[in-house]
Amino acid sequence: MTSWDQVAKDFVQYYYHVFDTNRELGPLYSAQSMCTFEGQPFQGAEAIVQKIKSLPFQTVRHDVKTYDAQPAFADPLNPSSPMGVLVFVNGDVFIDGSTSPVKFAQVFHLKPHPQNPQSYYVYNDMFRLNYG
Amino acid sequence: MTSWDQVAKDFVQYYYHVFDTNRELGPLYSAQSMCTFEGQPFQGAEAIVQKIKSLPFQTVRHDVKTYDAQPAFADPLNPSSPMGVLVFVNGDVFIDGSTSPVKFAQVFHLKPHPQNPQSYYVYNDMFRLNYG
Repeated sequence: MTSWDQVAKDFVQYYYHVFDTNRELGPLYSAQSMCTFEGQPFQGAEAIVQKIKSLPFQTVRHDVKTYDAQPAFADPLNPSSPMGVLVFVNGDVFIDGSTSPVKFAQVFHLKPHPQNPQSYYVYNDMFRLNYG
Repeated sequence: MTSWDQVAKDFVQYYYHVFDTNRELGPLYSAQSMCTFEGQPFQGAEAIVQKIKSLPFQTVRHDVKTYDAQPAFADPLNPSSPMGVLVFVNGDVFIDGSTSPVKFAQVFHLKPHPQNPQSYYVYNDMFRLNYG
């Protein structure tokens, strides 16, 4: 498994676990983070988490069917620059105990923290439901 | 419309027009480009276009339902560095004249050409069908 696959695997597992438990996802975003949720733009950890927490359901479960990952070098002319990771998730989401899944797709661009390149935060996040 | 929305709009229109016409997408990729197609990785314009051209159908039509775009700065610490654009597409694909759509989702990370930052190429590409 490549290093970016490992980053993606750990991230996907952690992100949806927290989302489905208490939605306390603030630490994964920064003030620079962007989220486009069903076409609506949000900027910064606070606004993004506020949106996530305001979603009108009590319980939610994400069932990740596939995730793909690719490296996105911060500077394409300098391969030794810290590596970002693009993560592309497809799966089903179940709302309030429903047994009828709604398909979703989500993209994350993870960037290494400038002060700690072993650690990543969500720089870009785009989410779409894919209705039947 | 922001500059990255405009880049995304033009790209999406052009990309699927060429895909659905003759699949001659080579000029949009570079030797560094990565494509993950239904989980299978391909590197470089030649391998990527070979894969696209080998897809087992005679005709295809992509019906883009939504596209979202965000800027992905090449260097987050230097906002004047050339801007990459993340493009996230969701839609239906129709194969060989079928009237039954298959849902797809696709992510592109467009990077400015180092010599010509007004022009973009596909650095990252991930594609998934989203079956019924």
